[in-house]
Formats: sequence, structure tokens, C-alpha cells
Amino acid sequence: MSAVEIRVATAQDLPAVVRLLADDTLGATRERYADPLPDEYIRAFAAMQAQGGNHLLVAEIGGAIVGCLQLTVLPGLSRQGAIRGQIEGVRVASTHRGQRIGETMIHHAIDRCRAAGCSLVQLTSDVTRTDARRFYERLGFQATHVGMKLALT
Amino acid sequence: MSAVEIRVATAQDLPAVVRLLADDTLGATRERYADPLPDEYIRAFAAMQAQGGNHLLVAEIGGAIVGCLQLTVLPGLSRQGAIRGQIEGVRVASTHRGQRIGETMIHHAIDRCRAAGCSLVQLTSDVTRTDARRFYERLGFQATHVGMKLALT
Repeated sequence: MSAVEIRVATAQDLPAVVRLLADDTLGATRERYADPLPDEYIRAFAAMQAQGGNHLLVAEIGGAIVGCLQLTVLPGLSRQGAIRGQIEGVRVASTHRGQRIGETMIHHAIDRCRAAGCSLVQLTSDVTRTDARRFYERLGFQATHVGMKLALT
Repeated sequence: MSAVEIRVATAQDLPAVVRLLADDTLGATRERYADPLPDEYIRAFAAMQAQGGNHLLVAEIGGAIVGCLQLTVLPGLSRQGAIRGQIEGVRVASTHRGQRIGETMIHHAIDRCRAAGCSLVQLTSDVTRTDARRFYERLGFQATHVGMKLALT
């Protein structure tokens, strides 16, 4: 089996990443993969790159993108000026699950957080994704918070 | 009663904001207010200002800072390139609770999120803050997620 490489995504990776986002129980209705890629995703990637500390990471095996996550480094005042690392949009290709790719990505993200001086890594997981919660608990995350969202229309 | 003004904080507001963060059940052990202000907070405020879209907002009544929150605007790929507004560190002075200052701050933050093109506002609340959860639910937030944290040592 080829080794997994975790790296920062480039614009060339975008179509593969959007396909991953759509290849998911919840993502299937939320995302819109098409060729050429819808402009919303291209604009969003440019906005991520324009903001400091907002990174899209991908997992690559033998030239194929098999996983992704978004890592944002967030300075703030709380907790004596703690820098937080925040993880969102974690996905592993359905063809590559059970190979610890998610775990490798999260460990890589945590290492990046440490290097950026973060004292905390945070994420939220949809309450319906019970497997995801167990996965993060196994990696040391504690479910200390309620994650609340308000859709703006 | 004087009107509440919600505005972006300046460096001059920092001591008052840190006093607010410390004037809280959980903050009492997490924060460290001192005069002069510990360097950690000054560095953290500078880092917030250096990052795009990371704002400290304060509520002011008659020249006194009575509330604060952090609002971060986060571009990302998920949900068709949705921009998220994220709220953290919401505090109202213990002397000014029950005057809808928190509500005014959150509404102001939501308005800023709309203006920034956000399609979603998100926050997490410590599971022990049951009043806070009810407060956000009353404002329309839904507790759809589990908020998980990993402390880095």
C-alpha cells in the first residue's frame, strides 16, 4: 500500500476535494459537484487563501486525493490569549475508509496546531454522526460543548 | 438608562474586556486580570487584528464596557463555499445582566455576519452553561452539533 501524504491543497486539488465533500451522507444534499467546478467553490478557496491561518489540507495516496479537512488557526483573548486550532469539513473517500487516513490527517492537523502555538484544538461534529464522535474521543477530544448553528436566509 | 452601543474594540478597551472575561464562573480560573495587563492579552489582540475577519466587539454604556464577544468570519469550502460567522467569548458584566445586552450584542454580530455574506452563524457553549444554551435557542440557534476540544500541553 502506498503511503499517505498530508499536504496543503492547491487550486488543482479543488475538484477532487469538492467530490469528497459531496461523497458523504450529509454532504450529498449540501454540495454541488460539477465539471467545470461551480464558481462558489473557486471563490471560497480564494477567500480562504486571502485570510491568514485558514488552510485546506488534503491526504494523497499515489497521486489520488483521498481525504481533506479545513484547519483554521484562530487567535483570541479568552483563556489568557489562547490560540485555537479549529478543524472543519473532515472527509475520507468512501473507497478508502478503515485505513486510518482520518486519524493520520487529524494527527497532522494537531501537529500543525502545536507548531502555530495553539493551546487548544476544537471541532464540532453533527450529533447524527455518532461514529465521528467516537473517533474523536479515541483521539483525545472531549465533548465538553454544545455546538449551535443559526442559518441566515 | 443610557443606550448600549456595540462597536469594534480598540487597544484602550483591552483591560476592561479582560476584566469581563475573568468575571465569569469558568473565566475566574482561566483568565488572569492584572494592572498592567499581562502581555499574553496584548499579543493576542495584535494577532486578532493581523488576521482578516477576526473582530473583538464590545458593548458600551455611558463610557463603560459592559459586554464583549469575538466574531470571526470564516470562509470555507463546505456547504457550497459557505462563509461562516463564528462567535466566541460572549460576556456581559455581572452588574449589567438581565438588560438584554447579550441579545443586543448577538443581534449586532448576526447583522455583521449577514453584511459579510455569511450563510451560517455558529458558536459552541460549555455544556455546564444551561442558561446560555436556552438563551441562544431563544435567538434561533439550534443545538445540532457536539462541540469537542483537545487541550495541547
